[in-house]
Parts: sequence; structure tokens; C-alpha cells
Amino acid sequence: MSIMEENYMEERNIVVAVDESEESMYALSWCLRNLLSQNRKPTTTLILLYIKPPLDVTGYLFAGDVIATMEKHNSDLTNSVMSRAEAIYKNFEPTVKVEKKIGSGDAKNAICLAVEKLGADILVMGCHDYGFFKRALLGSVSDYCAKHVKCPLVVVKRPRTAQMRDDM
Amino acid sequence: MSIMEENYMEERNIVVAVDESEESMYALSWCLRNLLSQNRKPTTTLILLYIKPPLDVTGYLFAGDVIATMEKHNSDLTNSVMSRAEAIYKNFEPTVKVEKKIGSGDAKNAICLAVEKLGADILVMGCHDYGFFKRALLGSVSDYCAKHVKCPLVVVKRPRTAQMRDDM
Repeated sequence: MSIMEENYMEERNIVVAVDESEESMYALSWCLRNLLSQNRKPTTTLILLYIKPPLDVTGYLFAGDVIATMEKHNSDLTNSVMSRAEAIYKNFEPTVKVEKKIGSGDAKNAICLAVEKLGADILVMGCHDYGFFKRALLGSVSDYCAKHVKCPLVVVKRPRTAQMRDDM
Repeated sequence: MSIMEENYMEERNIVVAVDESEESMYALSWCLRNLLSQNRKPTTTLILLYIKPPLDVTGYLFAGDVIATMEKHNSDLTNSVMSRAEAIYKNFEPTVKVEKKIGSGDAKNAICLAVEKLGADILVMGCHDYGFFKRALLGSVSDYCAKHVKCPLVVVKRPRTAQMRDDM
């Protein structure tokens, strides 16, 4: 099959991995501007994927109210991330078909599994511009996804001028 | 500055790193379909970047005609890559403003330097789906670029069905 004979995809699922970071919100905004331009058919679905931090309390003796507080915190975080994302795509013209998916667990594994399950055509994610030590300790979610997802991956870095001081 | 206050970019340089691989040609085709849709302003420039393998003959005693043959091979390779790329973008509607840039040296360093120099807004590259050992030996150009370029990077993987047997 020649490359050019391939049909233009009529239906596309674009998955944007969102989290609490400014970087992920910037990636969402970039995606709207660059991948969902005005003549896109309404068959493109933007899927916002948020992976909650795992709430693993096995082996710990937490009082019931502590666990409830942790769960509440997790749920507040999810709402906060999705509200911020909503504020970004609501301003975008034309209206985009949006779905929200919430997962939990280790972000990099959970994103790769979700991308496969959702039949994503493109995965978009932000990139924390960590220094050497932070990267060595934490690993990089985008590195992992680049190795493991099957679809095209867009790693969006925020331009230096738009970066906040907290990513030092 | 809020994310949404940012101006839409009027002029964009999209750099596609091309080489002899099917993966890079697929990435170019993906870029045309997904990043250069029909309502894009003609101010978007598609820059095809090809990095020739280094021709380092220092310290070797090659006869002049051997060097000439190596140079000829390198030049043939460049023409072949650019012709294949041309066949892809020529078929694309609407006409795209294309520039061709040739560099030489170690691909990953040369790409990162060129991206900076060309003021790229987006870098698009293919991805060789190497196995563990090949990746460990060769490293990955896209991994390196993900760490070092400042602009959004698109790593395009060819869908399994379109992959050839030679990337085992």
C-alpha cells in the first residue's frame, strides 16, 4: 500500500492527557489550535483523559475519616483539572465534541492502556521540563508513552516565556 | 499571561525530519493530513530537513576516487530522499510552501540545532519501532529530540498494518 493511497480518516479520536500542571493545559490549548482547526469535520472527538493518583491504603492503618478525606481530595483534584480544561475548550470555536475519561493508577501505564482501549488516533501530552536529577528520579511519562503507544504522540512543551517559575 | 490570551500564530514553520526510512515518509504524509489542513493560512512553511550521514575521512588513507564515490553516494541518497518527499507533498492540496534544508553530522544533534536555528514551531519525525537491543545500541533520535528541542514534537508511528517487514 502506498502512503498516499491511504484514506483520509473520517473519524478521529484525539486523546489529551490532562493533569494539574500548567503544561498539560497548554498542551490542550495547543491541540485545539493546531489539530482541531475550523474545517475539521465534527467527527473528531476530543477525549480528555485524567489519571488520578492511586489511593493505595493497603497495609496502612488509617482511620475511616482519613481515607474519606484522601478520597475527597482526589475527587476535588479531578473536578479542578476538568474545570480548568473545560474553561479552555469552551472558548474554542467551533464547538468540539468532548468526552471525559477518568482513570487511576500509575500515570504512564494507565495512559498507555487507555490510549489503546479508546482507539486513539493521536495522543497529546504536555512535558514537564525537569532537570537531570528530577528526570532521573521520576522518569518521564512522555518518554514512556513514546515507547509504548502505537499512535502518533505529540509532546507539547510550553515556550520558555510562558513557563512559570515552579518548573525549575 | 493566561493560556487563552496568547495570540494565534500567524506564521508557522513546521519542520519534518526526513530520511531514507518509510517511517519518515509516513510522518510527512501524516503531517500534511493533520497539521496542514485546507484552511491553513499560506503563511505556514513546511521545512523538509535531511541530515546526511557524516563523511568523516580524517585519519584514513582513502584514495581520492574512494572519497569521491562516498560523496557521490551521499549526494544520491539526499536526492533520493528529497524526491520521495516531493512525491508525497506534490499530491497534497492545497499547495504547500516548502523549503528544503540539508545538514550533515550526527542526526540527533544536527536536528536539534537545526530546529533552533530555523525557528521551528513544530518538529515532526517518524519513529523506528526498534526492539530493546537495537534501541539500547543505537539510542533513539526521537527520545533525544524530545529532551532537547524547545518546540512541540510530534513522534509519528506507522500503524502496524502499514509497517514493512524490515523493521523487525
